[in-house]
Amino acid sequence: MVNRQLSIIKVGGKIVEEPESLQQLLDDFATIEGPKVLVHGGGRSATKLASTLGIESKMVNGRRITDAETLKVVTMVYGGLVNKNIVAGLQARGVNAVGLTGADMNVILSDKRPVKDIDYGFVGDVKQVDGKRLADLLQAGIIPVMAPLTHDGKGNILNTNADTIAGETAKGLAPYFDVTLIYCFEKKGVLRDENDDDSVIPTITRQQFTDLVAQGVIQGGMIPKLENAFQALHAGVKQVVITSANDVSGQQGTKIF
Amino acid sequence: MVNRQLSIIKVGGKIVEEPESLQQLLDDFATIEGPKVLVHGGGRSATKLASTLGIESKMVNGRRITDAETLKVVTMVYGGLVNKNIVAGLQARGVNAVGLTGADMNVILSDKRPVKDIDYGFVGDVKQVDGKRLADLLQAGIIPVMAPLTHDGKGNILNTNADTIAGETAKGLAPYFDVTLIYCFEKKGVLRDENDDDSVIPTITRQQFTDLVAQGVIQGGMIPKLENAFQALHAGVKQVVITSANDVSGQQGTKIF
Repeated sequence: MVNRQLSIIKVGGKIVEEPESLQQLLDDFATIEGPKVLVHGGGRSATKLASTLGIESKMVNGRRITDAETLKVVTMVYGGLVNKNIVAGLQARGVNAVGLTGADMNVILSDKRPVKDIDYGFVGDVKQVDGKRLADLLQAGIIPVMAPLTHDGKGNILNTNADTIAGETAKGLAPYFDVTLIYCFEKKGVLRDENDDDSVIPTITRQQFTDLVAQGVIQGGMIPKLENAFQALHAGVKQVVITSANDVSGQQGTKIF
Repeated sequence: MVNRQLSIIKVGGKIVEEPESLQQLLDDFATIEGPKVLVHGGGRSATKLASTLGIESKMVNGRRITDAETLKVVTMVYGGLVNKNIVAGLQARGVNAVGLTGADMNVILSDKRPVKDIDYGFVGDVKQVDGKRLADLLQAGIIPVMAPLTHDGKGNILNTNADTIAGETAKGLAPYFDVTLIYCFEKKGVLRDENDDDSVIPTITRQQFTDLVAQGVIQGGMIPKLENAFQALHAGVKQVVITSANDVSGQQGTKIF
């Protein structure tokens, strides 16, 4: 049996938070054929609102420490402002979107991250994705727009990394679709030379990844991004693409397989 | 054919914004048998956040003037904070809730209110409810939790009165269910004497309503509430109940038919 193609597109906060780039993104996303899922961030708006409210944003390794007040801010910004503007914008383009956190229809259940060296607060580590429920929505022509929030099943919303949501959702939908997972970010792809925006590495296999890390070509935050990509492939996702926000269909960028 | 019973419960902002009364509401709502819908307000939190952000809340006849900055606030508070806390709280009680604005799955389309004497700003007058979509969700065991926000189909979220959302949703679902619409508020029902909390009028028909208004027993904000109730009945809703937040199942209070 040939499964249907499904595109899962993760876009960072910057793209969805500036009106101009958001409109372009929504135009591009609307033109993608077939079933699709949009996963968004929103960190910059959250930081801005927190700052206006006098709440200090504490980050450790790029992750936000989420105390009770910060949780309110991200619930408002991710689940409300950013998510609903995307949904309304997609509806205006004929895309029948639904905004979801993990709590909605219980699509993503998390565990509150255990306190080890650092107490991240109300941050979730994804435990379970209801791929069947998401597949049913997609089969009914509904397009999920997922905010980076999950829940613990005990009544708490949990702040959850958007890359992780995208990866776990891709794995959860892999039994139902041939999933392409597309991470959009500021660069055109994985670069051979970080100072040369056009030095995109077109394809990376697991063996090449190991070699490129050993050579110091791939470093820093790109390493966990690619580790996540290989994990997703291992769990049945067909293809992962790391590309720019101008390429939501994933035709360019770096293809990982 | 006998239709299934459906309860649509509207609760005001005060109930969902205080942790203790919210927990009680969620406990009560969770015990209601069969398909159900929760419609919530959130005005007090919106006013509070707006005030902290230095945005003045302007009200005319109890309706919020919604400029662009205020729209952001209500989108965050209604669509994010209040809605997602309710959804997570219901999930913890085994209720498979989904939080919806009118933009989500295009369930409620509105027109931006035309400017006459007053420019209400980004405020929606409900044009169309997709009752079939909501009925499909309910048939699948999903419980909609509706924020007082709709959209105009042109990319704009619109602030929309929660009583209106409840009434229009009840009408939209009337072809699919025997709908009981329950408005919960601070009083125990429609009172014969506003200074006597126990003077609840148990039932009101259209003729009695006309008489009670003529006698000055029913006045002020209760008149449009009851007008809406009769409109809903006229459009196929089986029963409307006006009762207290301690009675979400609508066993007490004032029954309108």
